[in-house]
Amino acid sequence: MFDLIVLGGGPGGYKAAENAAKAGLSVCLFEKRAVGGVCLNEGCIPSKALLYSAKLYDYAKGGAEKYGVTSENAILDYKAAVERKDKVVKTLVGGIEATLKSLKVTVIREEAAIEGKTSDGFKVGGQIGRNLIIATGSETIIPSIKNAETCLTNREILSLTEIPETLAVIGGGVIGLEMVSLFNSIGSKVTVYEALDKIGGPLDREISIMLQKIYEKKGVTFYLGAAVKDAAELGAEKTLLSVGRKASTKNIGLETLNVYLERGAVVTDAQMRTNVPNIYAVGDVNGKSMLAHTAYREADVAVNAILGKRDEMRYDAIPSVIYTNPEVASCGETLETAVEKGYKAVEKKISLKYSGRFVAENDGGDGICKLVVNNSDNRVMGIHILGNPASEIISAAAVAIERKMTVEQLKTVVFPHPSVGEIIAALL
Amino acid sequence: MFDLIVLGGGPGGYKAAENAAKAGLSVCLFEKRAVGGVCLNEGCIPSKALLYSAKLYDYAKGGAEKYGVTSENAILDYKAAVERKDKVVKTLVGGIEATLKSLKVTVIREEAAIEGKTSDGFKVGGQIGRNLIIATGSETIIPSIKNAETCLTNREILSLTEIPETLAVIGGGVIGLEMVSLFNSIGSKVTVYEALDKIGGPLDREISIMLQKIYEKKGVTFYLGAAVKDAAELGAEKTLLSVGRKASTKNIGLETLNVYLERGAVVTDAQMRTNVPNIYAVGDVNGKSMLAHTAYREADVAVNAILGKRDEMRYDAIPSVIYTNPEVASCGETLETAVEKGYKAVEKKISLKYSGRFVAENDGGDGICKLVVNNSDNRVMGIHILGNPASEIISAAAVAIERKMTVEQLKTVVFPHPSVGEIIAALL
Repeated sequence: MFDLIVLGGGPGGYKAAENAAKAGLSVCLFEKRAVGGVCLNEGCIPSKALLYSAKLYDYAKGGAEKYGVTSENAILDYKAAVERKDKVVKTLVGGIEATLKSLKVTVIREEAAIEGKTSDGFKVGGQIGRNLIIATGSETIIPSIKNAETCLTNREILSLTEIPETLAVIGGGVIGLEMVSLFNSIGSKVTVYEALDKIGGPLDREISIMLQKIYEKKGVTFYLGAAVKDAAELGAEKTLLSVGRKASTKNIGLETLNVYLERGAVVTDAQMRTNVPNIYAVGDVNGKSMLAHTAYREADVAVNAILGKRDEMRYDAIPSVIYTNPEVASCGETLETAVEKGYKAVEKKISLKYSGRFVAENDGGDGICKLVVNNSDNRVMGIHILGNPASEIISAAAVAIERKMTVEQLKTVVFPHPSVGEIIAALL
Repeated sequence: MFDLIVLGGGPGGYKAAENAAKAGLSVCLFEKRAVGGVCLNEGCIPSKALLYSAKLYDYAKGGAEKYGVTSENAILDYKAAVERKDKVVKTLVGGIEATLKSLKVTVIREEAAIEGKTSDGFKVGGQIGRNLIIATGSETIIPSIKNAETCLTNREILSLTEIPETLAVIGGGVIGLEMVSLFNSIGSKVTVYEALDKIGGPLDREISIMLQKIYEKKGVTFYLGAAVKDAAELGAEKTLLSVGRKASTKNIGLETLNVYLERGAVVTDAQMRTNVPNIYAVGDVNGKSMLAHTAYREADVAVNAILGKRDEMRYDAIPSVIYTNPEVASCGETLETAVEKGYKAVEKKISLKYSGRFVAENDGGDGICKLVVNNSDNRVMGIHILGNPASEIISAAAVAIERKMTVEQLKTVVFPHPSVGEIIAALL
């Protein structure tokens, strides 16, 4: 008998378990694979480890020459890079396991499902919990094209130990583009097939086009508005399916308690409550924003709801990053989405060539920073950056947008000089 | 006859000139050397350009091997790196000149001084201005030690085209440490002589000790509490003087109008006004915080005062960075300074090994993030980071501290995963 059962040990699940245990609740966490979920084991983290090897290889191959640094016979030992990636993942998984253990969370490494409700609480995987957080995550969408079964998903592609000569990528969203970046750097001939008329999903259109051009220059071929019917026809040595992900709601017994779904995802409110009292859903499984950092925040909110602490989930200041090289990061509305929603919004933009730090560290490179402002109250609605290290700079934007800061308020903030991030101040 | 004369074209001076011109004022800017000042021409920017070459050289020399990337015969063509650095500076100086020109600022490339006051305004360098902003910056302090004249300052060291075998650095503050980092990477045997009992000036003591250990491991020797009496006795091929900087208030006619000085710096209030109506002082010359980004903000405040716009300079949320490798960045109070000022402050800290992104990109490395909180109102007072890219992460801290955010408010901010910056959230 536990105060809380958490179903799924990814970012949303383990964060919820940690928070609840810190607050003194007894917690049972079910995870069928490894804690850390897709993000840590076959997504965000392993890709970052490999992308960093690729970045260093780019420099070794001649990218450092502009900076006065040369060397010969650059070699990427890809097997070694993959082994290091595995070590990084293992270290971090071990860290989470240790934290859960120190917090006395009962971790059960089994697949589990909701079995019903007793007078004491919910029965899940043979255990009883007064509260239940569903955090089963998401899975790769396998499109109904011929020979889809011969393709790789994010899971398999990160475990390749040999570099394919040719790689076809079906779906030019975040995951697709990161693999484009990786395999382009390490020597594959990469071709992207994107169904929409631009890459990067909801990314600002101008930045999407700039990013595509950068990768075209590096030798990647893009087909936009492409309807792939047969993976075999693409003729690539390896083909990656990255058309999207869907909430994992099958075989976990949601129907037993009539937990509402909408378009295959668990319906949640601003406290992450489902329609069934004391059942919550956090992370990809609610389909709101399939990002690990969203899941972390949702976990905070769900546990606060269980504890009776006032808190509320909002989705208007969640940053998103594409870890290409250069990186892209966004937070808040683009001009397009702001106008669609009926805001009187304006956009300002500036080249990163106005940042001394950027010029010092990106010889001959360019990038852009865009600011979207609500004209009626002068609040910052969105910030969008193409250029390294956008993934780190965007945090300042996240603070400003979350706090609903006006341009005048942001003007009083002193950004360090020289930093690439101070480009935001140049737009105010 | 101008609405505004600006004396000095560094960060404070050119920003003030730009702001005033954008607001429709007629502006005359005097600069005796090149616009951009010490920061752009012989400080922040050229050092960053060279440090980036050094960083890439570190990877080429074997630093990339852990990531599976090897190469042979790594060479740093230091002359080429210095030439690139000069090109970066030239490009950026050209950018500022172009902006000033497009804004119709009259730039006079001459040394000038205050000559007096007429009924129309102040007479400076033969021109008349209704308002005057003093932005003459600062200069290297030359300590009264023997053979000081044989030493280099920040100006000369950045123009060396050959790498000294041995380098002595007198003064282990920000400038000294950045040169330690550069010359250690590119092959000099470096020894640091610091008069205080720790390096890094006002830096958090624990971080200071960690940084020193990192550089000791890289082969740098540190003497703390060192009183150097004769530069020649250090026996180094080159010796850098970096004991500090002082406001440049000589020979600019301040005495003509009895502008108040205190400890050699122009006295200013929260609107950057001096004791003489319509005379303002921004940047290093007021001695408040000798940082380019402080000067930018002071320029905003001074011009707003001239325009009659309400604004106020504050110094409690100004970030500072040491561009060593790893970088160090701080914003706000350390526990030590907070307690000294009488606050009931507490400190929390965490190793950067808890950041997945950090682990993925810093194999075997470590770093730290510290959070100082005011216990009475739960506000964030300080954030201090050792680890790359601290210089970019600290902007989020600057926003939070400037906006006087509480821990509870900062908890609602979603930091992107994986980023090093999200380590801040782990401390909340």
